Amino acid sequence: MRLTQFSNFAVRILMYAGLRGDGPSTIPEIARAYGISLDHLKKAAAELGRLGYLKAVRGRSGGIRLAREPEAINIGEIIRQTEDKRNLVECFDPETNTCPLHADCKFRFALEEALEAFFSVLEKYTLADLVDERDKLAACLNMKISRRFPDGAEIPVAAIKPSEGCR
Amino acid sequence: MRLTQFSNFAVRILMYAGLRGDGPSTIPEIARAYGISLDHLKKAAAELGRLGYLKAVRGRSGGIRLAREPEAINIGEIIRQTEDKRNLVECFDPETNTCPLHADCKFRFALEEALEAFFSVLEKYTLADLVDERDKLAACLNMKISRRFPDGAEIPVAAIKPSEGCR
Repeated sequence: MRLTQFSNFAVRILMYAGLRGDGPSTIPEIARAYGISLDHLKKAAAELGRLGYLKAVRGRSGGIRLAREPEAINIGEIIRQTEDKRNLVECFDPETNTCPLHADCKFRFALEEALEAFFSVLEKYTLADLVDERDKLAACLNMKISRRFPDGAEIPVAAIKPSEGCR
Repeated sequence: MRLTQFSNFAVRILMYAGLRGDGPSTIPEIARAYGISLDHLKKAAAELGRLGYLKAVRGRSGGIRLAREPEAINIGEIIRQTEDKRNLVECFDPETNTCPLHADCKFRFALEEALEAFFSVLEKYTLADLVDERDKLAACLNMKISRRFPDGAEIPVAAIKPSEGCR
């Protein structure tokens, strides 16, 4: 059983944008940070835009940023949208099913219940939960981040060397 | 996200053998009943033998049969063995991981918890639960089954026409 690369990349883009905070990120920068294919990342970012999780920032130092607060981005909700439930087994899609047991099959019912449990666990988490250790993750990704304080001041976080925790 | 064909076929073989009851079934017969590839089915059956779920019945009218009672065959336990947990995402296998966030990634932890929930649901079911509607399923598979009574008598179940419930 394998999560699609699409879902995996979608969450990684959101984590990167969440770590960046208010500033924009670019897709090539995210591709470099994770060491993954630019083309696949572009597709995932476009879909995240369409789904209302990312928005474009225009201009010379433009890019993408989160369209909502990290607390309002539910991980289970994203994965439900990026994973097609019908893919789990052939018989989940009436159009591809060839199994004669389809209508009465309790294995199918058990798999549906199991998949629901999978999504439900992910629904307990928001993007804010995934990026709460901001400095540590940013260091692993070699990101230069700044921190905004309640009085509006924005202070660059001193470059932290990637720790042994990375990889 | 897709369950491997291997897991899917493994459970279908066990369901067929469970419906058959005490008598042996052959792999070609199971392949015909489900309309699936003989080669793939052979591999899954061999693995089920290795794992102790099936045993060979020697002789002219030989084949395979369950090596345990259906009540003692746990579906979650099978799927845990036929699905390699490390396949869910690249980073679940330290040998294939390329993500720099690996060690501290809370998305990975959430996915592990979600996968555990998936298996746990399947662990609520045994093969007996999946084949409790024996006559109906056997009819869908065009199987001729017989029923053994407590006094040892074995009575063929009248051929039941596949109902509208099938497929």
